[in-house]
Amino acid sequence: MKQPLLQLIGVLHCDIATLADAPKNYDVSAKVGTLEIYPAYQAGLDGISVGQTIVVLFWLHRSSRDQLQVYPRGDHSRGLRGVFATRSPVRPNPIAISELAVLAIDGGRLLVSGLDMLDGTPIIDIKKKIIP
Amino acid sequence: MKQPLLQLIGVLHCDIATLADAPKNYDVSAKVGTLEIYPAYQAGLDGISVGQTIVVLFWLHRSSRDQLQVYPRGDHSRGLRGVFATRSPVRPNPIAISELAVLAIDGGRLLVSGLDMLDGTPIIDIKKKIIP
Repeated sequence: MKQPLLQLIGVLHCDIATLADAPKNYDVSAKVGTLEIYPAYQAGLDGISVGQTIVVLFWLHRSSRDQLQVYPRGDHSRGLRGVFATRSPVRPNPIAISELAVLAIDGGRLLVSGLDMLDGTPIIDIKKKIIP
Repeated sequence: MKQPLLQLIGVLHCDIATLADAPKNYDVSAKVGTLEIYPAYQAGLDGISVGQTIVVLFWLHRSSRDQLQVYPRGDHSRGLRGVFATRSPVRPNPIAISELAVLAIDGGRLLVSGLDMLDGTPIIDIKKKIIP
Protein backbone atom coordinates (compact mmCIF):
# COMPACT_ATOMS: atom_id res chain seq x y z
CA MET A 1 0.00 0.00 0.00
CA LYS A 2 0.95 3.68 -0.38
CA GLN A 3 2.88 5.39 2.42
CA PRO A 4 0.30 7.15 4.60
CA LEU A 5 0.48 10.90 5.20
CA LEU A 6 0.11 11.93 8.85
CA GLN A 7 -2.17 14.75 9.96
CA LEU A 8 -0.75 17.10 12.60
CA ILE A 9 -3.60 17.65 15.08
CA GLY A 10 -1.84 20.12 17.35
CA VAL A 11 1.40 21.33 18.90
CA LEU A 12 3.07 21.21 22.31
CA HIS A 13 3.97 24.36 24.23
CA CYS A 14 6.40 23.89 27.12
CA ASP A 15 9.67 25.19 28.54
CA ILE A 16 11.82 22.30 27.26
CA ALA A 17 13.92 24.12 24.65
CA THR A 18 16.83 21.72 24.20
CA LEU A 19 17.36 17.98 24.46
CA ALA A 20 19.58 18.62 27.50
CA ASP A 21 16.51 20.05 29.31
CA ALA A 22 14.32 17.02 28.51
CA PRO A 23 13.64 14.35 31.13
CA LYS A 24 14.49 10.85 29.90
CA ASN A 25 10.89 9.61 29.80
CA TYR A 26 7.37 10.59 30.80
CA ASP A 27 7.48 8.26 33.81
CA VAL A 28 10.30 10.30 35.38
CA SER A 29 8.99 13.75 34.41
CA ALA A 30 6.89 16.29 36.29
CA LYS A 31 7.22 18.94 33.56
CA VAL A 32 4.03 20.87 32.83
CA GLY A 33 2.99 22.27 29.45
CA THR A 34 0.06 22.83 27.10
CA LEU A 35 -1.24 20.66 24.29
CA GLU A 36 -2.78 23.04 21.72
CA ILE A 37 -5.22 21.10 19.56
CA TYR A 38 -6.05 22.85 16.28
CA PRO A 39 -9.68 23.98 15.77
CA ALA A 40 -10.36 21.41 13.02
CA TYR A 41 -9.70 18.58 15.52
CA GLN A 42 -11.18 19.96 18.75
CA ALA A 43 -14.46 18.00 18.43
CA GLY A 44 -12.34 14.91 19.07
CA LEU A 45 -11.54 16.06 22.63
CA ASP A 46 -15.11 15.72 23.86
CA GLY A 47 -15.15 13.36 26.85
CA ILE A 48 -11.62 13.99 28.16
CA SER A 49 -11.76 15.14 31.79
CA VAL A 50 -9.45 16.82 34.26
CA GLY A 51 -7.63 14.29 36.45
CA GLN A 52 -7.45 11.55 33.86
CA THR A 53 -4.28 10.17 32.27
CA ILE A 54 -4.16 10.35 28.48
CA VAL A 55 -1.85 8.62 26.02
CA VAL A 56 -0.40 11.19 23.62
CA LEU A 57 1.46 10.43 20.39
CA PHE A 58 3.99 13.03 19.28
CA TRP A 59 5.91 13.30 16.02
CA LEU A 60 9.57 13.88 16.90
CA HIS A 61 10.20 16.25 14.02
CA ARG A 62 13.88 16.79 14.83
CA SER A 63 14.83 13.09 15.05
CA SER A 64 16.90 11.21 12.51
CA ARG A 65 14.83 8.72 10.49
CA ASP A 66 17.59 6.86 8.69
CA GLN A 67 19.47 5.15 11.50
CA LEU A 68 18.50 1.61 12.53
CA GLN A 69 21.01 1.10 15.35
CA VAL A 70 21.97 3.31 18.30
CA TYR A 71 24.14 3.23 21.40
CA PRO A 72 21.57 2.95 24.21
CA ARG A 73 21.63 6.19 26.28
CA GLY A 74 24.74 7.22 24.34
CA ASP A 75 26.76 4.60 26.26
CA HIS A 76 29.27 3.18 23.74
CA SER A 77 30.48 0.49 26.16
CA ARG A 78 27.29 -1.50 25.76
CA GLY A 79 27.49 -1.75 21.97
CA LEU A 80 25.02 -0.88 19.24
CA ARG A 81 21.43 -2.01 19.53
CA GLY A 82 18.52 -2.05 17.05
CA VAL A 83 16.27 0.99 17.49
CA PHE A 84 13.19 -1.29 17.79
CA ALA A 85 14.71 -2.77 20.98
CA THR A 86 14.93 0.74 22.52
CA ARG A 87 12.88 3.89 23.23
CA SER A 88 15.36 6.02 21.27
CA PRO A 89 13.79 8.96 19.40
CA VAL A 90 15.86 7.82 16.41
CA ARG A 91 13.74 5.41 14.29
CA PRO A 92 12.15 5.21 10.81
CA ASN A 93 8.90 6.73 12.13
CA PRO A 94 9.88 8.95 15.08
CA ILE A 95 6.64 8.63 17.03
CA ALA A 96 6.82 9.04 20.81
CA ILE A 97 4.22 7.73 23.25
CA SER A 98 3.67 9.67 26.49
CA GLU A 99 1.25 9.13 29.34
CA LEU A 100 0.27 12.56 30.63
CA ALA A 101 -1.96 13.73 33.47
CA VAL A 102 -4.63 16.27 32.49
CA LEU A 103 -4.48 19.22 34.93
CA ALA A 104 -6.92 21.61 33.19
CA ILE A 105 -8.89 21.96 29.95
CA ASP A 106 -9.72 25.24 28.22
CA GLY A 107 -11.36 24.59 24.84
CA GLY A 108 -8.65 23.19 22.62
CA ARG A 109 -5.88 23.72 25.21
CA LEU A 110 -5.02 20.90 27.63
CA LEU A 111 -2.66 21.62 30.51
CA VAL A 112 -0.72 18.40 31.15
CA SER A 113 2.15 17.11 33.25
CA GLY A 114 4.75 14.43 32.55
CA LEU A 115 6.36 16.00 29.49
CA ASP A 116 9.70 14.91 28.03
CA MET A 117 9.30 16.54 24.60
CA LEU A 118 10.71 19.72 23.10
CA ASP A 119 8.59 22.86 22.83
CA GLY A 120 7.01 22.94 19.36
CA THR A 121 6.72 19.17 18.95
CA PRO A 122 3.74 18.23 16.72
CA ILE A 123 0.92 16.12 18.22
CA ILE A 124 -0.55 13.34 16.08
CA ASP A 125 -2.96 11.48 18.39
CA ILE A 126 -4.55 11.26 21.85
CA LYS A 127 -6.05 8.06 23.31
CA LYS A 128 -7.70 6.91 26.48
CA LYS A 129 -5.26 4.98 28.67
CA ILE A 130 -6.08 1.30 29.20
CA ILE A 131 -6.21 0.74 32.96
CA PRO A 132 -5.08 -2.87 33.49
CA MET B 1 5.58 21.97 9.08
CA LYS B 2 4.84 19.60 6.18
CA GLN B 3 2.71 16.53 6.83
CA PRO B 4 5.13 13.65 7.47
CA LEU B 5 5.04 10.53 5.32
CA LEU B 6 5.07 7.26 7.29
CA GLN B 7 7.34 4.35 6.40
CA LEU B 8 5.77 0.89 6.55
CA ILE B 9 8.36 -1.32 8.25
CA GLY B 10 6.47 -4.61 8.01
CA VAL B 11 3.14 -6.41 7.98
CA LEU B 12 1.13 -8.60 10.35
CA HIS B 13 0.17 -12.18 9.48
CA CYS B 14 -2.56 -13.73 11.65
CA ASP B 15 -5.90 -15.49 11.44
CA ILE B 16 -8.02 -12.42 12.28
CA ALA B 17 -9.76 -11.87 8.93
CA THR B 18 -12.72 -9.68 9.96
CA LEU B 19 -13.42 -7.12 12.66
CA ALA B 20 -15.92 -9.58 14.18
CA ASP B 21 -13.00 -12.00 14.82
CA ALA B 22 -10.87 -9.35 16.53
CA PRO B 23 -10.55 -9.23 20.33
CA LYS B 24 -11.43 -5.82 21.76
CA ASN B 25 -7.89 -4.97 22.88
CA TYR B 26 -4.44 -6.51 23.31
CA ASP B 27 -4.97 -6.87 27.07
CA VAL B 28 -7.84 -9.31 26.50
CA SER B 29 -6.30 -11.23 23.58
CA ALA B 30 -4.28 -14.45 23.41
CA LYS B 31 -4.23 -14.50 19.59
CA VAL B 32 -0.90 -15.52 18.07
CA GLY B 33 0.53 -14.28 14.77
CA THR B 34 3.71 -13.19 13.00
CA LEU B 35 5.20 -9.73 12.58
CA GLU B 36 7.07 -9.77 9.26
CA ILE B 37 9.65 -6.96 9.28
CA TYR B 38 10.88 -6.02 5.81
CA PRO B 39 14.60 -6.65 5.04
CA ALA B 40 15.43 -2.92 4.88
CA TYR B 41 14.43 -2.55 8.55
CA GLN B 42 15.61 -5.83 10.09
CA ALA B 43 18.82 -4.32 11.54
CA GLY B 44 16.53 -2.41 13.90
CA LEU B 45 15.41 -5.66 15.59
CA ASP B 46 18.81 -6.41 17.09
CA GLY B 47 18.46 -6.73 20.87
CA ILE B 48 14.84 -7.95 21.01
CA SER B 49 14.65 -11.28 22.86
CA VAL B 50 12.17 -14.10 23.25
CA GLY B 51 10.05 -13.69 26.37
CA GLN B 52 10.02 -9.91 26.37
CA THR B 53 6.98 -7.69 25.85
CA ILE B 54 7.26 -5.21 22.98
CA VAL B 55 5.14 -2.18 22.14
CA VAL B 56 4.04 -2.35 18.51
CA LEU B 57 2.49 0.49 16.52
CA PHE B 58 0.20 -0.52 13.67
CA TRP B 59 -1.36 1.59 10.93
CA LEU B 60 -5.07 0.70 10.79
CA HIS B 61 -5.30 0.99 7.02
CA ARG B 62 -9.03 0.18 6.87
CA SER B 63 -10.15 2.77 9.46
CA SER B 64 -12.02 5.96 8.69
CA ARG B 65 -9.86 9.07 9.16
CA ASP B 66 -12.51 11.77 8.85
CA GLN B 67 -14.71 11.17 11.85
CA LEU B 68 -13.99 13.00 15.13
CA GLN B 69 -16.80 11.53 17.24
CA VAL B 70 -17.98 7.95 17.76
CA TYR B 71 -20.46 5.96 19.82
CA PRO B 72 -18.21 4.14 22.31
CA ARG B 73 -18.35 0.37 21.60
CA GLY B 74 -21.21 1.07 19.17
CA ASP B 75 -23.52 1.77 22.14
CA HIS B 76 -25.82 4.62 21.02
CA SER B 77 -27.40 4.99 24.47
CA ARG B 78 -24.23 6.56 25.88
CA GLY B 79 -24.05 9.35 23.30
CA LEU B 80 -21.28 10.48 20.99
CA ARG B 81 -17.78 10.94 22.33
CA GLY B 82 -14.65 12.56 20.88
CA VAL B 83 -12.31 9.97 19.36
CA PHE B 84 -9.38 11.29 21.44
CA ALA B 85 -11.28 10.24 24.60
CA THR B 86 -11.52 6.65 23.29
CA ARG B 87 -9.41 3.78 21.87
CA SER B 88 -11.60 3.67 18.74
CA PRO B 89 -9.72 2.74 15.54
CA VAL B 90 -11.51 5.72 13.94
CA ARG B 91 -9.29 8.83 14.27
CA PRO B 92 -7.37 11.31 12.07
CA ASN B 93 -4.21 9.15 12.32
CA PRO B 94 -5.40 5.56 12.82
CA ILE B 95 -2.38 4.32 14.78
CA ALA B 96 -2.94 1.43 17.21
CA ILE B 97 -0.66 0.61 20.14
CA SER B 98 -0.35 -3.04 21.20
CA GLU B 99 1.72 -4.70 23.89
CA LEU B 100 2.71 -8.11 22.55
CA ALA B 101 4.69 -11.00 24.03
CA VAL B 102 7.54 -12.29 21.85
CA LEU B 103 7.27 -16.09 21.57
CA ALA B 104 9.97 -16.75 18.94
CA ILE B 105 12.27 -14.86 16.56
CA ASP B 106 13.40 -16.10 13.16
CA GLY B 107 15.36 -13.39 11.33
CA GLY B 108 12.82 -10.72 10.41
CA ARG B 109 9.83 -12.75 11.63
CA LEU B 110 8.61 -12.35 15.21
CA LEU B 111 6.01 -14.75 16.56
CA VAL B 112 3.88 -12.76 19.03
CA SER B 113 0.76 -13.16 21.14
CA GLY B 114 -1.85 -10.61 22.22
CA LEU B 115 -3.08 -9.58 18.77
CA ASP B 116 -6.30 -7.66 18.12
CA MET B 117 -5.49 -6.52 14.55
CA LEU B 118 -6.60 -7.74 11.15
CA ASP B 119 -4.35 -9.94 9.02
CA GLY B 120 -2.41 -7.69 6.61
CA THR B 121 -2.23 -4.67 8.94
CA PRO B 122 0.92 -2.58 8.28
CA ILE B 123 3.48 -2.18 11.10
CA ILE B 124 5.05 1.26 11.61
CA ASP B 125 7.14 0.94 14.79
CA ILE B 126 8.34 -1.35 17.60
CA LYS B 127 9.56 -0.08 20.99
CA LYS B 128 10.82 -1.49 24.25
CA LYS B 129 8.10 -1.48 26.90
CA ILE B 130 8.72 0.81 29.87
CA ILE B 131 8.44 -1.37 32.98
CA PRO B 132 7.11 0.93 35.72
